[in-house]
Amino acid sequence: MKKEVTIVGVSGYGGGELVRLLARHPDIKLVQALGDTHAGQPLSSAFAGLHGSEVGTLICEPKTSKVRGEIVFLAQDNGYSSGVAGTLLAEGRTVIDLAADFRLKDTEAWEKFYKLPVPEESVREKAVYGLPERHREQIRGARLMANPGCNATAAILALAPLIEAGVLENSPVIVDVKAAVSGAGRAKSDAPYRFSERNESVVPYNVGGVHRHIAEITQEAGVTPTFVPHLIPMSRGIVATCYAPLKNKSSLESLYEVWKRAYASEPFVIVRDSGDWPTTKDTLGSNYCHLSATVDPSTGLVVLISVLDNLGKGASGAAVQNMNVALGFEETAGLEGAGIWP
Amino acid sequence: MKKEVTIVGVSGYGGGELVRLLARHPDIKLVQALGDTHAGQPLSSAFAGLHGSEVGTLICEPKTSKVRGEIVFLAQDNGYSSGVAGTLLAEGRTVIDLAADFRLKDTEAWEKFYKLPVPEESVREKAVYGLPERHREQIRGARLMANPGCNATAAILALAPLIEAGVLENSPVIVDVKAAVSGAGRAKSDAPYRFSERNESVVPYNVGGVHRHIAEITQEAGVTPTFVPHLIPMSRGIVATCYAPLKNKSSLESLYEVWKRAYASEPFVIVRDSGDWPTTKDTLGSNYCHLSATVDPSTGLVVLISVLDNLGKGASGAAVQNMNVALGFEETAGLEGAGIWP
Amino acid sequence: MKKEVTIVGVSGYGGGELVRLLARHPDIKLVQALGDTHAGQPLSSAFAGLHGSEVGTLICEPKTSKVRGEIVFLAQDNGYSSGVAGTLLAEGRTVIDLAADFRLKDTEAWEKFYKLPVPEESVREKAVYGLPERHREQIRGARLMANPGCNATAAILALAPLIEAGVLENSPVIVDVKAAVSGAGRAKSDAPYRFSERNESVVPYNVGGVHRHIAEITQEAGVTPTFVPHLIPMSRGIVATCYAPLKNKSSLESLYEVWKRAYASEPFVIVRDSGDWPTTKDTLGSNYCHLSATVDPSTGLVVLISVLDNLGKGASGAAVQNMNVALGFEETAGLEGAGIWP
Amino acid sequence: MKKEVTIVGVSGYGGGELVRLLARHPDIKLVQALGDTHAGQPLSSAFAGLHGSEVGTLICEPKTSKVRGEIVFLAQDNGYSSGVAGTLLAEGRTVIDLAADFRLKDTEAWEKFYKLPVPEESVREKAVYGLPERHREQIRGARLMANPGCNATAAILALAPLIEAGVLENSPVIVDVKAAVSGAGRAKSDAPYRFSERNESVVPYNVGGVHRHIAEITQEAGVTPTFVPHLIPMSRGIVATCYAPLKNKSSLESLYEVWKRAYASEPFVIVRDSGDWPTTKDTLGSNYCHLSATVDPSTGLVVLISVLDNLGKGASGAAVQNMNVALGFEETAGLEGAGIWP
Repeated sequence: MKKEVTIVGVSGYGGGELVRLLARHPDIKLVQALGDTHAGQPLSSAFAGLHGSEVGTLICEPKTSKVRGEIVFLAQDNGYSSGVAGTLLAEGRTVIDLAADFRLKDTEAWEKFYKLPVPEESVREKAVYGLPERHREQIRGARLMANPGCNATAAILALAPLIEAGVLENSPVIVDVKAAVSGAGRAKSDAPYRFSERNESVVPYNVGGVHRHIAEITQEAGVTPTFVPHLIPMSRGIVATCYAPLKNKSSLESLYEVWKRAYASEPFVIVRDSGDWPTTKDTLGSNYCHLSATVDPSTGLVVLISVLDNLGKGASGAAVQNMNVALGFEETAGLEGAGIWP
Repeated sequence: MKKEVTIVGVSGYGGGELVRLLARHPDIKLVQALGDTHAGQPLSSAFAGLHGSEVGTLICEPKTSKVRGEIVFLAQDNGYSSGVAGTLLAEGRTVIDLAADFRLKDTEAWEKFYKLPVPEESVREKAVYGLPERHREQIRGARLMANPGCNATAAILALAPLIEAGVLENSPVIVDVKAAVSGAGRAKSDAPYRFSERNESVVPYNVGGVHRHIAEITQEAGVTPTFVPHLIPMSRGIVATCYAPLKNKSSLESLYEVWKRAYASEPFVIVRDSGDWPTTKDTLGSNYCHLSATVDPSTGLVVLISVLDNLGKGASGAAVQNMNVALGFEETAGLEGAGIWP
Repeated sequence: MKKEVTIVGVSGYGGGELVRLLARHPDIKLVQALGDTHAGQPLSSAFAGLHGSEVGTLICEPKTSKVRGEIVFLAQDNGYSSGVAGTLLAEGRTVIDLAADFRLKDTEAWEKFYKLPVPEESVREKAVYGLPERHREQIRGARLMANPGCNATAAILALAPLIEAGVLENSPVIVDVKAAVSGAGRAKSDAPYRFSERNESVVPYNVGGVHRHIAEITQEAGVTPTFVPHLIPMSRGIVATCYAPLKNKSSLESLYEVWKRAYASEPFVIVRDSGDWPTTKDTLGSNYCHLSATVDPSTGLVVLISVLDNLGKGASGAAVQNMNVALGFEETAGLEGAGIWP
Repeated sequence: MKKEVTIVGVSGYGGGELVRLLARHPDIKLVQALGDTHAGQPLSSAFAGLHGSEVGTLICEPKTSKVRGEIVFLAQDNGYSSGVAGTLLAEGRTVIDLAADFRLKDTEAWEKFYKLPVPEESVREKAVYGLPERHREQIRGARLMANPGCNATAAILALAPLIEAGVLENSPVIVDVKAAVSGAGRAKSDAPYRFSERNESVVPYNVGGVHRHIAEITQEAGVTPTFVPHLIPMSRGIVATCYAPLKNKSSLESLYEVWKRAYASEPFVIVRDSGDWPTTKDTLGSNYCHLSATVDPSTGLVVLISVLDNLGKGASGAAVQNMNVALGFEETAGLEGAGIWP
């Protein structure tokens, strides 16, 4: 029997991508979509691409409606999940949170970066950082998953195994991100997100030490990078270009060995040859993360290129993958296939 | 048992989209990909998004290799199919041609618009115009399908049933097309297709009476429109805005009745309410065509908006749909689901 | 001595382009910039491109500040100018209004399309429709100019002389517009103008009989077209593709004769050969309008292509041109030069 | 009397921008434009935006025509200038070379990065690196200027004064570049520059130690950075994000002091406050370079943001500035004004 799923916050970009992915998932059925923007209207009114599909006829409900799904995706602003997760868990549901509320173990980091109350400890302690490539065993059977930040996923997948294996020095590490505009979310409609101003422009923001995803990288990869994001005039996609010193006795070969060992059985991490540089279009609409690396001989610095779709492996694709692992479905269910090209 | 499929001309945009769609088709197996550009290399070298999928490991073969598939997709320049279709049919294969060779019944129109030799009559007479919404019965069991032109499909789906039902006058009819750059194909790398010149620009071309898709519209919809295409700075998508006089005694209501009747059972044509105007993003990566209409009260002209993805319903998606109908597979197999949004 | 200029509503796209153009104008000096968004801040805080220029140091004032300039540009929402123009005129100032308040002679059309009160008659009667190519003699010495709508300018420059000369039938006339997103203004930050949703999409809107610029075309070109605008994923530029029947005894040659005669001495209208189709990039950042035409032999319809920059000849460039004509400056002052390419 | 100017290689992006800028220059007259692509045709056929301007009527000549201008801009592929500069100098002309031939003092670096013969010594020794902000005195009266590479200019203007003043350590230094597609030139029409593939994608290339502009940065800023460029889906603009360790006893304040002192009198370098991050749209079509910086407190690394238009200060604008300084014209002549926004 198919498990029933509820999405809370269906009107945003993350919610829309969840609907698209879940519609082709063999083991679940989307039974409830909550979101005030389109309450009372069919999902196809929010996402016209759903016209003609069964899921498009599902009527959205107000955000405060009673949740019915055994599995609940929370795609709301930071701070919302803290208030509802405890109840949902007590009712026996499995919760996958796309917001940041349960990502950080370090409550000081949470307060510093998010300036929001720390979620209740009894709920926090149940949360698993939802990156299967790092925590698959914990995710199996878990009831509360904190889906990682998009930039964090790109950086952690590149850096974490290399730091862990001692291939890289852990300082100075730099993560220079080129990110599509949808990463800011659909609600961000103020000036910086207007088409005419974002188009034909690269926009640095949160330069140096202030972006919230830094705390996740510190927690999961064991390094605190200088992190600088730049908005790019495109709808989807992230390139995280990471720089770090190669450790004494390490080499590009040993780096690749570590990556290949770490990701040999991973269905969604592609380790590409040095020189075969991935582009964001390689992952457009898919759940893959592509990695490639080189060593700059003149400086001894390693350059890691990590590419993914911020709404795929960076958000909703990862959320579905977490569900699959937690519930024991085929890990790739609903996530198969290449992205859109060109 | 799965049917075996060959793609000839796998390196282009149409070929790439075929690979993506066929990879998730339950009834066939892509066993052979021909194309000189990547001969000897795995498909993932041509389309990096295929890394991690089984189909990505298929080794491309030179274009002149012996075809092995029971089903053959020809995604080559106009004129190529004329030379090979006869042999492929004689060998018992089913052929779906994405080029124009077999689209036109009228050999004069063919010579006028394409300036190429007329294909051999014994082969031509076997060809079916591959638009299931108009010729489904002929396509069932057919062995040679001429896949329609992308702009033609958009215009025909909007106009044909209305002309046929006598809702519209057949003159003057105007089709003003806004088309993504990929419609020109991957081989077109000369000036007009360079990024820096196409970006941030709208480019009219083939203005008035010269675009080749006119002949298909004449043949299938029974009208010869003034047709003006414009290149738009985007990778995928077509809007065909069609204008025609409403016939005496017709109304917007009778227009919608005809459309709704024509497309009630069609899995890939969505008739949307007047005022609910489709955008190309509604169909990005999917096999749908969205239609909507209004009457301008001040002029009595009808405006029809027809939207599709030029590589989806406008090319490779339609080709898969043709295969499904011809071979008796589920018509939507491999084509399910919404497009990418945003 | 340089004339002193005030801009009211400096924070928008039209206001910003006015600042850029006026900064290089030899006969005037921008002395005052009103706009609440950046009140108290230098203009360079609103438009970072002004850093390093003298005009960038001008401190913005609140919108309600007393106007000091002898020449006043009003770049506000529709309805604002009606309230202030009378006073500004009484104070002896020259007013160029970029909004619609004074464009329409027909008060019924004004009420129908704008649903706003009719401006006071004593002020209205002073207003000149600010299209020098049609009303240069009236603009000379005028004190109140209604700057045309961007789409209207594109359509009128193409159609008006041809209708007037009897080259075209006046029905059915179609104007199919492809327009950059900035045409909607900077204040429009709701969903339809978010980057991620406008990017990689063509969006029809106001389809058939409802766009406000129709009334200007009727007034100035003597035809009421079916008018359909489409948003294009670019920041600036308009293509108006116009369709109309050629009148008996007319020909493409007679059409070109009329255009060439009409625009022989015009500094900003370029009549290009049939087949040499203009693109929006040809006018990016300049004050030019490019025209080209053909006749579709199969339908007898004329196709006119009219291209301009919606913030140049479509708004702020035209406003400067109006000032030049009204005040007796060199008509091209501040407007010389080609646009940006590529 | 106006000096006469020749452009060799007028059909490319750099050549086109030179024409646009020189057309409004008060002290020179463009008398000759060489380029095979449009030989025999008016310049307006190469750049349609020149229709209506006097310069647009200049007839292009074949590339091998005898040069007539007292001032010659060479906008050709690397290697061309080496062959002609000696003769042009001997004829008494002033030469501004937009290619790389005369940029590097170090012949080994030249051979390593460019794999081309070293230009003749008697000519090489006359060449000045054409960055007025670093070599203004040498440029005054110079006869052969090597116009810097676009990425090099962005990096050098940010780094050189800080390295020189001992504010930054010189290792490890990272320059992560986000560059518009036009930087590759108009001749690059192969796959990576096709619209459909470049659009909606970020593309890393020449990753780590191999980009040719590194040698210029080493020569002019005294550091060899790890340099990684990324193609961005836009036509114009560069962001160079530079990372380096702050030297003991230095601070963000001392960094800004150095920058402000270095650039206090510079007409085209804008030092913006920390936190006021420049975007490429701030410089679109202008000759400005905008700088801003911060220190990441968690890592002690400095982040420098340097932004310019690759065809403005990164190429043709800089070439005009070099001419102005060398010939004693007003340094800002032909280069005044803000860029296009939005």
